[in-house]
Amino acid sequence: MDISHIEHIGIAVKSIADNLPYYENVLGMKCYNIEEVADQKVKTAFFKVGQTKIELLEPTSDESTIAKFIEKRGEGVHHIAFAVPDVAAALAEAESKGVQLIDKAPRKGAEGLNIAFLHPKSTHGVLTELCM
Amino acid sequence: MDISHIEHIGIAVKSIADNLPYYENVLGMKCYNIEEVADQKVKTAFFKVGQTKIELLEPTSDESTIAKFIEKRGEGVHHIAFAVPDVAAALAEAESKGVQLIDKAPRKGAEGLNIAFLHPKSTHGVLTELCM
Repeated sequence: MDISHIEHIGIAVKSIADNLPYYENVLGMKCYNIEEVADQKVKTAFFKVGQTKIELLEPTSDESTIAKFIEKRGEGVHHIAFAVPDVAAALAEAESKGVQLIDKAPRKGAEGLNIAFLHPKSTHGVLTELCM
Repeated sequence: MDISHIEHIGIAVKSIADNLPYYENVLGMKCYNIEEVADQKVKTAFFKVGQTKIELLEPTSDESTIAKFIEKRGEGVHHIAFAVPDVAAALAEAESKGVQLIDKAPRKGAEGLNIAFLHPKSTHGVLTELCM
């Protein structure tokens, strides 16, 4: 698989508003976009740090997987997203090498990216997204 | 705080050897260094992806904080490390803004870096390292 960089790190938070002072005033990052991803039932806030984005994920419904993650584990890192030139090809390669997939085909994520997740059972506990 | 990029992501694993096939054969990264950090009771393995390193952390003792992390939460992302030009100055700034510190002063970490950790209570659950 040809990964160029870490596209973003997804962090589950109860409230984007409550996190902004830490990211903006302490870490000195600037939130440049907040958007809702309706089918994932989350609101997302983006910061850029070098090549990589920090993506805060706030659940908009108790049914959101992010709400369930926070209920089980508390706030914290939810996933790592690697940039690949071709998500479908990378998925096919991963599956051919025995990796269990959450998404069999790319779908649309925040910021218009094509995204797909590998199953953490196959990635030693790290929920892993491939995107472009 | 003047963060240039994400220096590394620390991932707690039970066994570096068991993780190598996933990182090298599936993700296509190359492990370029394995070293032991005796005072943290861990063995570390490094991969580079763009500006950022993946640091696998394997406990070398049941007393390691990594062993306790895995016991409590399973394998997965342990911390995020931001590169700053001056760790002591960044710590002082964080403390002045009300952030609880794990390390009051920088100490030596893997790869000869100066490192210090912020307390996850002040960072909304993300164990955060500053390093240079």
